[in-house]
Amino acid sequence: MQDPQAPNPSRRRALFTGGALAAMASTPELALADGIRADPRARVTASGAKALPEYASWKDRAAMTVHSANTIELRRSYMGQGALTPIQHLYVRNNLNPPSEDIVRDPDSWVIEFAGVGKPMRTTLGELKRIDVASVAMVLQCSGNGRGYFPHKPSGTQWREGAAGCVVFTGVPLKSVAAALGGVASGMKYVTGTGGEPLPAGVDRNTVVVERSIPISALDDALLAWELNGEPLPLAHGGPLRLVVPGYMGVNHIKYVKQLAFTAEQSAAKIQQTSYRFTPVGVKGSPSAPSLWEVPVNSWITTPYGHEAPARAGRVQIGGLAFGGFSPLTGVEVSIDDGRTWQTARLFGPDLGRYAWRHFTLPVDLASGTYRIASRATNARGDVQPRERIENERGYNNNSWLDRSLELTVA
Amino acid sequence: MQDPQAPNPSRRRALFTGGALAAMASTPELALADGIRADPRARVTASGAKALPEYASWKDRAAMTVHSANTIELRRSYMGQGALTPIQHLYVRNNLNPPSEDIVRDPDSWVIEFAGVGKPMRTTLGELKRIDVASVAMVLQCSGNGRGYFPHKPSGTQWREGAAGCVVFTGVPLKSVAAALGGVASGMKYVTGTGGEPLPAGVDRNTVVVERSIPISALDDALLAWELNGEPLPLAHGGPLRLVVPGYMGVNHIKYVKQLAFTAEQSAAKIQQTSYRFTPVGVKGSPSAPSLWEVPVNSWITTPYGHEAPARAGRVQIGGLAFGGFSPLTGVEVSIDDGRTWQTARLFGPDLGRYAWRHFTLPVDLASGTYRIASRATNARGDVQPRERIENERGYNNNSWLDRSLELTVA
Repeated sequence: MQDPQAPNPSRRRALFTGGALAAMASTPELALADGIRADPRARVTASGAKALPEYASWKDRAAMTVHSANTIELRRSYMGQGALTPIQHLYVRNNLNPPSEDIVRDPDSWVIEFAGVGKPMRTTLGELKRIDVASVAMVLQCSGNGRGYFPHKPSGTQWREGAAGCVVFTGVPLKSVAAALGGVASGMKYVTGTGGEPLPAGVDRNTVVVERSIPISALDDALLAWELNGEPLPLAHGGPLRLVVPGYMGVNHIKYVKQLAFTAEQSAAKIQQTSYRFTPVGVKGSPSAPSLWEVPVNSWITTPYGHEAPARAGRVQIGGLAFGGFSPLTGVEVSIDDGRTWQTARLFGPDLGRYAWRHFTLPVDLASGTYRIASRATNARGDVQPRERIENERGYNNNSWLDRSLELTVA
Repeated sequence: MQDPQAPNPSRRRALFTGGALAAMASTPELALADGIRADPRARVTASGAKALPEYASWKDRAAMTVHSANTIELRRSYMGQGALTPIQHLYVRNNLNPPSEDIVRDPDSWVIEFAGVGKPMRTTLGELKRIDVASVAMVLQCSGNGRGYFPHKPSGTQWREGAAGCVVFTGVPLKSVAAALGGVASGMKYVTGTGGEPLPAGVDRNTVVVERSIPISALDDALLAWELNGEPLPLAHGGPLRLVVPGYMGVNHIKYVKQLAFTAEQSAAKIQQTSYRFTPVGVKGSPSAPSLWEVPVNSWITTPYGHEAPARAGRVQIGGLAFGGFSPLTGVEVSIDDGRTWQTARLFGPDLGRYAWRHFTLPVDLASGTYRIASRATNARGDVQPRERIENERGYNNNSWLDRSLELTVA
């Protein structure tokens, strides 16, 4: 099936206005996304666009691109300049169909099993709430965010920017749970979470189960979370209980988590062993290839983008969002000349901590003409967004500043 | 008209469970609020409850108490433990009926007039966006929040806790606008904002206009805001443009702001001269009485509250939210013995700055019995929440820890 959001090489160089909007209007999705700033309060469905699935029917339809029932992304023009992504704007990506809504009706009765601790046990979410509580603000991002820019069209959803959000999760620190259960057993090297999705009958469990392992150092900041942005965690985002591992890619934040184990080895599941591995184009994933764990440094411009009136000469605020990923953000630069020169942008708004994103702005005085605008973030371990994406088989980890650059025409 | 949320002296001492829930169930609103934890994703309307007004139809009905079309509050049991209040949970309070939704369809065309500056002028929201941008996280709270606890039943909405939220506003710093307009004219002592509500014909403007003045020191942090929690500011919260003055009570954050003036005197409007004044019971407001400006220090417990299973003996996390108001929060204590002894609670989650609230928790080990639990916050200028509310004619500024205390029965 042709994805209406599939990248079109000519689009990336398109102007914001005039001819560009006319061209964009040739697909109904883009006309709504970029040509018209629909009222985000209206729960409209664009003519010809896919409907939201029932379990995510409360999303802001006008703001989202529905790739499929299990892959829904936020349009760039709706990203705004607030500190957090509203829950109705947070992307959805499920590896399997979600369980029944029944599991979020009485969250406190959800059962989770713990292994690899001094006192392995099964307990309920209600009991976990008695142990401890903490919140973390963090970027949640799909490993394939930006896949739509890869020229070899990797299989999978052709995400652009919108498979990412900055949200607050609230739950119990995993280290508090481990302490309450007699501590982590000796020799354990991984945190392994198992999702509660119903598995199809008659197939090898390991080929389908959503079970991921990440280094045990994640224990420092991991939560078992029951709230998202202050609301009970909805099914669409892994409610009633989700493993939250700040700094790690989305797939590692196991939804409807039903088992949490400290393990000596990585999970034997396919999703761990061969999927979500970073390999050269043409090479299939294998256990020897890097796993999709750490979030890379990234940023992109969100304004001006295309929903505003045509840019006029004079002062313009170039704004966007930036995050350090696994390592804290240290700064972000903006270029208005296709990367030849860069100026340091100003971060603004509340600082929600090392795993969150920040919004930035750079005031520039623009004469009439055409400008290629881009942003480039840096983190504390010295990672800088590269000009070019790193080509890879599945189109993971795209943090190219060129791919997310935009052309701005000033009248 | 009898307000279904009017305080009932026996309710404040009610138990969470058993007889208390049965008693609460005698009003449909309370049964939904406190007895049943309805799915906050469902946009249900409780049988017998008032409907949301059209301009706020996107609020989470199950989470809100609709006092009237212009007064809608968040139920305590829905306050959660995230950093921010989701926009669908933010209270609504309008002094007049809001303007037509038409004014938010093309936000950038909104016109605002500036006076009391070097170069007075009219300009548009679109032009303001070119000047500068900033965000602030802050508590927005109605002056009458907690009025429902006053025994003399002051006129006005009988708010309990829910006429408050912590949100992020994004817009242009007012000081950047003032600088761009030649600076504040000499001798000006107040920031005076005028709302864009349509005024009824045939009445003296000053008796109805929403126009408030606050000390010019507010200029340091004030914004003219067009986004709320990262979304275009909706009509219900003053869109397309609102004057935002962190640290000040809700009435001062002028909605649909159409004029912003630096003035030598306070506005002659009734809402400034005699309304929103703090006076003894039985005494009407006058210009000599304190104006409802600064937000007082406050806190309240949100969990355990009443939607959970009955508390069992053992470890319980007592949680809530606390804010310093005009002055930064420095700490919060919890008492489980009706205020005889206090323990310092732990603040958790991201710190969004001096005007935001924080969530707190205190783990306590409870034996079977009955406990009166309360919280008490302190700010940097040494204000401590008092045990008793300060009685006053209109029921303003309630920050009594006793009024918001709760009785917890442990089985």
